[in-house]
Amino acid sequence: MALGFKLLYESKECKARLGEIITPHGVIETPIFMPVGTKATVKTMTPEELKDINTQIILSNTYHLYLRPGHDIIREAGGLHKFMNWDRPILTDSGGFQVFSLGNLRKITEEGVRFKSYIDGSDHFISPEKAIEIQNDLGSDIIMAFDECTPYPSTYEYAKNSMERTTRWAQRCKEAHNNTDNQALFGIVQGSMFKDLRMESLKQLIDLDLPGYALGGLSVGEPAEIMNDVLDYTVEAMPRNKPRYLMGVGSPDYIFEAVTRGIDMADCVLPTRMARNGGFLTSQGRLTIKNAVHRNDFSPIDPECGCYTCKNYSRAYIRHLFNENEILGGRLATIHNLFFLINLMKNIRIAIREENFLQFKREFYKKYGYLTDNPTEV
Amino acid sequence: MALGFKLLYESKECKARLGEIITPHGVIETPIFMPVGTKATVKTMTPEELKDINTQIILSNTYHLYLRPGHDIIREAGGLHKFMNWDRPILTDSGGFQVFSLGNLRKITEEGVRFKSYIDGSDHFISPEKAIEIQNDLGSDIIMAFDECTPYPSTYEYAKNSMERTTRWAQRCKEAHNNTDNQALFGIVQGSMFKDLRMESLKQLIDLDLPGYALGGLSVGEPAEIMNDVLDYTVEAMPRNKPRYLMGVGSPDYIFEAVTRGIDMADCVLPTRMARNGGFLTSQGRLTIKNAVHRNDFSPIDPECGCYTCKNYSRAYIRHLFNENEILGGRLATIHNLFFLINLMKNIRIAIREENFLQFKREFYKKYGYLTDNPTEV
Repeated sequence: MALGFKLLYESKECKARLGEIITPHGVIETPIFMPVGTKATVKTMTPEELKDINTQIILSNTYHLYLRPGHDIIREAGGLHKFMNWDRPILTDSGGFQVFSLGNLRKITEEGVRFKSYIDGSDHFISPEKAIEIQNDLGSDIIMAFDECTPYPSTYEYAKNSMERTTRWAQRCKEAHNNTDNQALFGIVQGSMFKDLRMESLKQLIDLDLPGYALGGLSVGEPAEIMNDVLDYTVEAMPRNKPRYLMGVGSPDYIFEAVTRGIDMADCVLPTRMARNGGFLTSQGRLTIKNAVHRNDFSPIDPECGCYTCKNYSRAYIRHLFNENEILGGRLATIHNLFFLINLMKNIRIAIREENFLQFKREFYKKYGYLTDNPTEV
Repeated sequence: MALGFKLLYESKECKARLGEIITPHGVIETPIFMPVGTKATVKTMTPEELKDINTQIILSNTYHLYLRPGHDIIREAGGLHKFMNWDRPILTDSGGFQVFSLGNLRKITEEGVRFKSYIDGSDHFISPEKAIEIQNDLGSDIIMAFDECTPYPSTYEYAKNSMERTTRWAQRCKEAHNNTDNQALFGIVQGSMFKDLRMESLKQLIDLDLPGYALGGLSVGEPAEIMNDVLDYTVEAMPRNKPRYLMGVGSPDYIFEAVTRGIDMADCVLPTRMARNGGFLTSQGRLTIKNAVHRNDFSPIDPECGCYTCKNYSRAYIRHLFNENEILGGRLATIHNLFFLINLMKNIRIAIREENFLQFKREFYKKYGYLTDNPTEV
């Protein structure tokens, strides 16, 4: 068995919970935020820097690594961990989300998805079996079933057909996956914003008895209330003794809401992408470093933050770096934003344990604001 | 006195020498290579990473910092060291080279240089006094006189007039410089490739009794033999008890030739600029990581190198990073190239002390090649 999950504690005041995911590359404390390293690198960061901010697991992407450098290269290198010099757990997304984002460059059939490479226009075909073969070569600890991320909005009929195909594909993924000793396959619940479809998707996937389940097709442009609504009824129906992963969520308020409803894992490019554009997550809300007001502000980005960036550099200096397109700017911002979220998750875990989570959430919102961020707008 | 120089050893086999420069921010062992941090950051690197590879001093640029963020901001921040979080010595170039590179965007008079900002087209005027005022605000340990970097080729008459003005400007710089307790002003020898002009320039500057002297107007496109020829007669005429700085030289073979002739300090953007384009300095010569031959090469960049990059990453991975324009690629390359030059300088110092320098140089050339590099072509 590639993966273990220990449910350590369940909050009395909401559905939040504490757990541990045990993988071949180490233990992950949940709830956890996973930084994204799409192309076998968390942009701007070394593995040592990720460890310095207590990153426990990173996410990488099957689709991008399949196109470049190619999974054959990574297999030859001894797997993704060795290739990128990261010895802690890795989760790989199946590529479904990226392939389906290609719009009219791709064609979906029951067999799989045919698409053209964004790099050179060459033809490619990814089936559930192929997605598993690639992820087997990558050697990631957690691999994801090949699904269709149903767009928002979708008609009921589209969402139903898409969800049912996602289940059939999950079945094929399970059958194709031979490396179950080292890699745990997660299924992805779809069904758009329709309760009966979500519940049916979940039921079908539970029948496959996979080691973990994710929620896909959320945070794709729908209002926050709708996402929270889907989370309300779906998460509590997910297996209690398995990890629950909300895909694509990374703004602090969305994370609070997801954890409140019983989510264990989340990932998003938001903190790293924002960072490279000079956007900072702070205890007081978002900060845009290029604003002229920071020109001669020699205070740190966030006086309450203990990260390397806030301990050593002023807003004035970081603003200068961004104005000059200096790479160090994006580095310092990425360190800060990832530290901010990872440290927030640590404090969330402490608050859950101390039955203080809802109070902690309220206090956070008071300073940070609530649902000011929509990750899809970044 | 802001600066001390101890001549520790003079080679018996050539004019190479060992010394120590004592500054308010620490001691520098010579001969030394100085990484360039033009805009208050050595591109891609943190100060800690620079220290990890034993960087003893960095160079920054008056002209660029004057334009952005402005020397007023850096003065307010408490000086350049504090602004950029670097507590070891800094040398600032006066901006002469950059201003004169502007071509028809600048106009030289006896008073100074009028030019248009490359950022917003605004009008600016830098005189020798202004260059010193800016550098006083920056608070760098070693500041440079405002000179004209005579272009190559130049007529004898142009070179003579230019050189004589450079001397007059050095005199004005000396008079304007009030912070002699904390900042040492170096003069810059010009005179193009004309021996009598070089000797006259040097003589006039020696009369000013400055704490150190630099050679400017070299490595500006002239053949290597001509540069070596100028070094042959000029360096030995420079004061024995003061540091001798060759501006703008950073390829390993040029450094060997300069040290052979008695140069103590050198700087160049070559290793860092090459790095960001995927070019690596190695014991076997230059390596271009984007070449297809490295696609599935899982060996390090340079098997003889002990840097962080070579200890942890393969050519295949680094090639992937460059193909994907991932920032980590430029970081790993910069770490390697700077380590390579700084470590080479350390081994050069050891070889000088052991009277083994010329043999060490021959062995290096055997593997690396000799004068294969022209820094101006990078």
